Formats: sequence, C-alpha cells, structure tokens
Amino acid sequence: MLTDNCISHGFDIRVRYSDTDQMGVVYYGNYPRFFEIGRTEFLRSIGLPYATLEADGFQLPVLELHARYHKPARYDDLITVEATLDTEALGATFEIEYVIRRSADVLVTGSTKHAFVRAGDFQPVRPPHQFRQALETAALHKRQERS
Amino acid sequence: MLTDNCISHGFDIRVRYSDTDQMGVVYYGNYPRFFEIGRTEFLRSIGLPYATLEADGFQLPVLELHARYHKPARYDDLITVEATLDTEALGATFEIEYVIRRSADVLVTGSTKHAFVRAGDFQPVRPPHQFRQALETAALHKRQERS
Amino acid sequence: MLTDNCISHGFDIRVRYSDTDQMGVVYYGNYPRFFEIGRTEFLRSIGLPYATLEADGFQLPVLELHARYHKPARYDDLITVEATLDTEALGATFEIEYVIRRSADVLVTGSTKHAFVRAGDFQPVRPPHQFRQALETAALHKRQERS
Amino acid sequence: MLTDNCISHGFDIRVRYSDTDQMGVVYYGNYPRFFEIGRTEFLRSIGLPYATLEADGFQLPVLELHARYHKPARYDDLITVEATLDTEALGATFEIEYVIRRSADVLVTGSTKHAFVRAGDFQPVRPPHQFRQALETAALHKRQERS
Repeated sequence: MLTDNCISHGFDIRVRYSDTDQMGVVYYGNYPRFFEIGRTEFLRSIGLPYATLEADGFQLPVLELHARYHKPARYDDLITVEATLDTEALGATFEIEYVIRRSADVLVTGSTKHAFVRAGDFQPVRPPHQFRQALETAALHKRQERS
Repeated sequence: MLTDNCISHGFDIRVRYSDTDQMGVVYYGNYPRFFEIGRTEFLRSIGLPYATLEADGFQLPVLELHARYHKPARYDDLITVEATLDTEALGATFEIEYVIRRSADVLVTGSTKHAFVRAGDFQPVRPPHQFRQALETAALHKRQERS
Repeated sequence: MLTDNCISHGFDIRVRYSDTDQMGVVYYGNYPRFFEIGRTEFLRSIGLPYATLEADGFQLPVLELHARYHKPARYDDLITVEATLDTEALGATFEIEYVIRRSADVLVTGSTKHAFVRAGDFQPVRPPHQFRQALETAALHKRQERS
Repeated sequence: MLTDNCISHGFDIRVRYSDTDQMGVVYYGNYPRFFEIGRTEFLRSIGLPYATLEADGFQLPVLELHARYHKPARYDDLITVEATLDTEALGATFEIEYVIRRSADVLVTGSTKHAFVRAGDFQPVRPPHQFRQALETAALHKRQERS
C-alpha cells in the first residue's frame, strides 16, 4: 500500500530480443533482472548507488522474490519499472515493491525482500547509517515538494 | 504440504560460471530458469514433455512466481531441483513447488502458478485431457510402488 | 576500417549485477547481448527499427560472431557500444562492427555477420528495399553534415 | 584441424525455454554459455576441474570468441557440445574449438582463446604445471587406447 512514507523511482527499460522466448514475449525469468534495474536506479535516485554500498563493505542479497504476471511485455516495448520502498517498514530486513508498466498497462508486479550483510562473509548487519540517512533525506524532499 | 496426491521429480543441475555474479554466488534471477528445468523434467517424467504440449497447441505461461533464498548455490555445485505437483489442487490454474538442494542443504524453495492457454492467442483453456491423464497415471504408479 | 561509407551509432549501456560473474567482471557471454543492443539502436537511428523489419516479414539471423576482449567491463560501468556498418560492403550478407568503450578505454571489439531471411521459413532473401534506402539516406545525411 | 595431439570431450545440453527467443530458435548470444559448458566439462574430463584451477589461484579469462551459426538449435533439442584442445598449440595462450551438433547435424562451430592469469589481479602467468600435466596424461591415454 502506498503511503506518505513511500519513496518511488521509475526507470525505463527497452525490451531486447535476448529477453524474449519462443512464446513471443519476455521470458518470465527475466523480470527479476528488470527488478534489479529498478532497485539499483532507485538507490541511485536517493544518492546512494549500490556500487557505493558495496565499496563501503555492504551487500544486499535477496531473501525473497515474488512476481505476478498480468500481461506480457513484448519485443522492443519501452517499459517502466517503478520501485517503491516504504521507509516506515525498514527493520533488519526491508522490501522493495515493483510495478512494471507499458504506458498505462500494468504488466508485472512484484517485490523483493532484502537484508544487509557484510561483504565477504555474508554476516547480517544493521542497515548502514548512510542508507537510513539517504532514505530520510528523500522522504523529506518528497514532503517538501508536496507542501 | 506433501500429501499422497503429490507427484515429485528431481533433476540435477550443474552451476555454471554464467550463473554466478560478482557476489561469488548464483545470481538470484537465475533460479527461475532452474525452476523451469525442474518443471520441464517433471513433465517429461510423467510422459508428457512440454514440447508435446506445445505441439498439441497448448502453452503454460507463468502467472505467479515465488522464491525464498535460504543459502547460496556456488560455482560448480551440483544441485538438485525437485518439482512437486499436488494433483488434488488441479483446477483452472495449478501450482508447482520447488526445492533446490545441495546434498542435504536446502538452498532455495519456491513455486510457480500456471494456467493452460491456447498457443497463439493466449486464451485460457481447461487443462488438456492428456495432462490430467498423465498425472493420474503417475499418481497410480506412485501408489502401486508404495503398496 | 572506417571509410566515408561507414555509418555509425553509439548507445550507452549500464552494466548490471546480472551481467557480472564471480570473476568480478562482465561475463564474456553477455557481450553478444550488448552487440544486439548496439545494432538494434543503430537500425533505429537510421529510421528502420528492427521491429518494423520483422513486422514487414524479414528477420536478420546472425551467421557469424566475433569478439575480442581487451579490458573487462565492471559492475555499474556506463559503457558505450558503437555499431558501424560499411554501406559499400552490402551484399547478400553484411557485417556490423562493434566497439565497446568505457570513456576512452576500448574494452571489447567485435562483429556480427547477417543475412536477411523471410520470417517463418528462414529462406534467404535480398536485403529489403527499405533497408537499402535507409542506409543511403543515412549516408547522404552524413556527407551533408560534413560538407 | 584435428590431429593426433588433439584431445576432445563431448557433453550433452538440453535446450531450455530460456535459451530460445521469439525467432523460435536458440538466441545467438546463448552459445557462448554452451561453449563454457563444453570447456568446463572438457577440463573435468582430463581430471582438472576449473573450480580446482581457481582454488589454486588461476583464472582463464576469454581473450577472443568466434562462432559460426550453421543451423538453429530449437527448444528441447538435446545437443552435444564437443570441445577440442590441440596440445601442440599450447603457449602463453591457447584455443579451444567447439562443435555443437544435434545428432549428425552440425549446428554451431566456434572457438575461444584463453590465457592463464593470477586470480585477483589478472596478471598473465604461464599455464600452470597441473594443466600441462593433465593434458599430457590425457594425450597419453588417447594414444594408448588407439594402439
């Protein structure tokens, strides 16, 4: 559910031949890649590229994946993946939700659940300071834009 | 939940370099491919290759995907994907459940939900006769083996 | 060799986690996908999207692929794939050459050789009129820009 | 050219839905993955799994890739990738050649060129002792089998 505490970011993806299968549509197993693009660009949009997180010694493995396929994306479609994070629901783990659209059509919805771990040994750690701060700043900007 | 009405089939997959990412483990988005291998070999094991279903004018698009990542698979691991179908839960749609193991370790669990459609125009159709029959025969064999 | 008859187009690609392998660099087998993006955007740039060619009943299977790996692309790199076609070398088959760069660094070079076929039965056909015309127009524009 | 100094190993691959594209055949960019499977199983067959080489601190990046597409592989085909190494042509770099067949039909041929590097910093190193030895042993076995 979208609330005031939700931060979102949309990013365009062009469907390539390599994304299709012989059913003539995007192979279902390619959407997790599209989700990755969505959350990577989400993180970049709040000023915290994932590459920076990794350079700081953190990684964000996926604990859980869910996807629901409403309509197929097709070759050469320009689709938008919107990634949303609810800043209130940020604990030891957190979820990112995705909506993939072609114009107004909702094609695929889904979510991934993540935990922060220490790069190298995969030990779970608390969400790093810079992550919490970037989310707070983004939430603040959003409220300011609105008022 | 595994019941007497569940039919299962296991199939081995060797993890390749192309399956890994720079975290040094299998990329989360590759498991749907492994699920596909699991359900394809499940169908073959009950005498109904997916290629035959397609040749007969049916397709089995994925409506929903769920995956839970417990432990990472690594390069050159020989993992087993076990696909299970509950023949009692077969309606207009049906689910296949997956467990991916490396020896006794459970690495990833998940499920996919499917509907039969007519190849070409994606119109939903009832599960074809040959599918129901193959499942019944497989269930019968399983009960006979046990008694 | 670049001559006056060569038409080029560059397109940016962001390297994703899914593109990397456990060597910490882009998996060698992902560059053909990048080449595909390069030639697709090349065709779009001359006003002839590949999707249009397919809608007109033509397909462009790859007959030959060559790639030379000079330096690795890494996660989150913004790389440019430049696709070049020599309009003088256009016969029953034709080649597209690729250079993938990160800023001034040349990472990967390569080429693909193609033939036009009739969609459906893969029968070789002559390059369609609209393809020759689009190339001529693009070559003309290039000469005009220069003079 | 196949000579007495060539060591070969064949390995079966089942074509999956994920391997196909909307042309109804295997996407051209998936064959490098098939080549990887071929050379990995080649190395395993001579008693030197690539995972062991990496554990010993060596990596085998690809310097060059070539593929020629003769006939398309299709969904559910059981294809064989045969990898061949000419032990006489083993210097600072070496090539592996591939032939992918479906029964007697040659579908794709190709090659990859490799160099050994030190894992971590990609510094080129001489082919390690265990590699040369494994090849010699394999070549010896081959000559013994024949005589």
